[in-house]
Amino acid sequence: MNAPNRLWRIASRPVDAVSRQNFLWVEEPMPQPGAGELLVRVIYLSIDPVQRYWLSPDATFGPPADAGMPMPGRIWGVVEQSASPAFPPGTLVAGPGIWAQWCTLPVAAAEPVPDWPGIPLLAHTSLFCMQALTAYFGLLEIAALRKTDTVVVSAAAGAVGSLVVQMARINGCARLVAIAGSEDKCRWLHEQLGADVAINYRTSDIGQALDAACPDGIDVYYDNVGGDILDAVLARINAHARIACGGFISHYDDGGQPRGIHNFQMLALKQARAEGFSCFEYVPRAGEAFAAIRRWHEQGRISYRAHLLKGLEQAPEALAGIFAGRNTGKTVIEVSPPPPEKAS
Amino acid sequence: MNAPNRLWRIASRPVDAVSRQNFLWVEEPMPQPGAGELLVRVIYLSIDPVQRYWLSPDATFGPPADAGMPMPGRIWGVVEQSASPAFPPGTLVAGPGIWAQWCTLPVAAAEPVPDWPGIPLLAHTSLFCMQALTAYFGLLEIAALRKTDTVVVSAAAGAVGSLVVQMARINGCARLVAIAGSEDKCRWLHEQLGADVAINYRTSDIGQALDAACPDGIDVYYDNVGGDILDAVLARINAHARIACGGFISHYDDGGQPRGIHNFQMLALKQARAEGFSCFEYVPRAGEAFAAIRRWHEQGRISYRAHLLKGLEQAPEALAGIFAGRNTGKTVIEVSPPPPEKAS
Repeated sequence: MNAPNRLWRIASRPVDAVSRQNFLWVEEPMPQPGAGELLVRVIYLSIDPVQRYWLSPDATFGPPADAGMPMPGRIWGVVEQSASPAFPPGTLVAGPGIWAQWCTLPVAAAEPVPDWPGIPLLAHTSLFCMQALTAYFGLLEIAALRKTDTVVVSAAAGAVGSLVVQMARINGCARLVAIAGSEDKCRWLHEQLGADVAINYRTSDIGQALDAACPDGIDVYYDNVGGDILDAVLARINAHARIACGGFISHYDDGGQPRGIHNFQMLALKQARAEGFSCFEYVPRAGEAFAAIRRWHEQGRISYRAHLLKGLEQAPEALAGIFAGRNTGKTVIEVSPPPPEKAS
Repeated sequence: MNAPNRLWRIASRPVDAVSRQNFLWVEEPMPQPGAGELLVRVIYLSIDPVQRYWLSPDATFGPPADAGMPMPGRIWGVVEQSASPAFPPGTLVAGPGIWAQWCTLPVAAAEPVPDWPGIPLLAHTSLFCMQALTAYFGLLEIAALRKTDTVVVSAAAGAVGSLVVQMARINGCARLVAIAGSEDKCRWLHEQLGADVAINYRTSDIGQALDAACPDGIDVYYDNVGGDILDAVLARINAHARIACGGFISHYDDGGQPRGIHNFQMLALKQARAEGFSCFEYVPRAGEAFAAIRRWHEQGRISYRAHLLKGLEQAPEALAGIFAGRNTGKTVIEVSPPPPEKAS
């Protein structure tokens, strides 16, 4: 193990939009696992909007991220050296890693990747991940989806949103409206994922588009973006509406002075609820969500579409690309070759 | 019954601040109760912030209110003519009335006022009213008060807020912070009602004052005002905070363009919940709340302080006075003499 390791360290906190300049591409010696640690060859690196938030000076959850540190990120990889008989070399694991070709993982933080027939490692990054927990519990518990609901989902072509759309269809709702940022995404959401209407927010007046798409008002809003879309939705909520506050990516790049929400008082007027949640709190119940998703996948009712980029050097642009709307589905970096796919 | 009736009709919808000019003081013949109606001599008229909202063109709950109509308002009075053996003349009743000396009430909408020793009719207007339901269920169910909570209450010297403060103290909380608009109110809240700290928002930087009053952050916010105070609270909420959205009086007079809330995304960051509610939904459970309040009152643990004005002609100024902060406790108009108080 004398090969060098390549990794991204944080060079600076972004002031507004995140870019390559906020990271430093370095070559370092292979990390040496300590007691109770695994040495892992990274195969896939998850690139998520929350990583931009971790770089904010006032970030209040998630791992600390500051200049000089390796950039944190969730990884899937293969164990190469192990201090634990539970993770022999060759075991596929997931865990809280860094933007690196190789990293160490504490045994306590490593999760074995289940060997499910017909589900390649890439599917795990999209369907059996933190975003899937976010989608599942956000929709079914926080938003308490009911079959009579008109449901609106923003960033609907993203890693979380595309699962929410499919889960809403699977679990039953009266009307399903997806909001995304391109015609291609809208076509995918409408034709493949089952949205009744897909709204391109870049080319529509969002208020008028919601009026047309939701003539009976909005019962559930799965919010991934905050900002103007949230405000437009608030103006159109029905009595007892539920807003699952899953993210606010429209704010991450705004340098800490989010635009105002003018319709907050609709919560009082409509006896409605807005609730934030974190997938981390649902980790103990991951088995329940993943069992359902696996069943739906076997039934052909849920699919994924990874936005796959090859080579760790692409990580900063991949993160910036999420805020530019360049991904459809989950953004994943292929850092090293995945294991051969088994037949299902 | 040939005496004339005096009442206030709506002259126009207020554009911003409500004033006497939005009402017309008229003399009309005594109303004639129809089948299934009571004729009631009004004793007390409740003046509440929500009445300003009823006058908004986009009001979405409560009775309709438009130019020409008598102004609606909750009344307590005595039955003078009755179509129902359940309400013989002389019965004290409460119900959805109008700003009038005399009004008719459908039997189905009339509620007998319980004859509780030691509780005069005026106490009913403050302690056994819609505002009491709002305070009770908003604090104990929507905000789900816990004994470890730091609680903040806005408009804390108002009809709802002054009950919330006392109910929080009675039910136990770690720290209780009241926000009001004068030194007199703050003194009452701190010295009489048990607030640990009372903040005069007119003379304080609300953010700095909250920082000083809530060094461990805010767990529960009982919001009666919306606007800048809500925004300042959102910036300081703890994980799993609960915001009971009871009202937004800072918006009622703003002509329909509420100021923006910049910290909505704190709900997502803190896995917090903001929830609106309406006392109307809790009417079926009024008995439960009123039994608790009566018990606390008998134990000397809850008190009231009506802002009592004599004469129906004062009603418009009384409503405007709420938004100017002239009331402490519930604003009540004494329209005609109350029954003599019985010894307890």
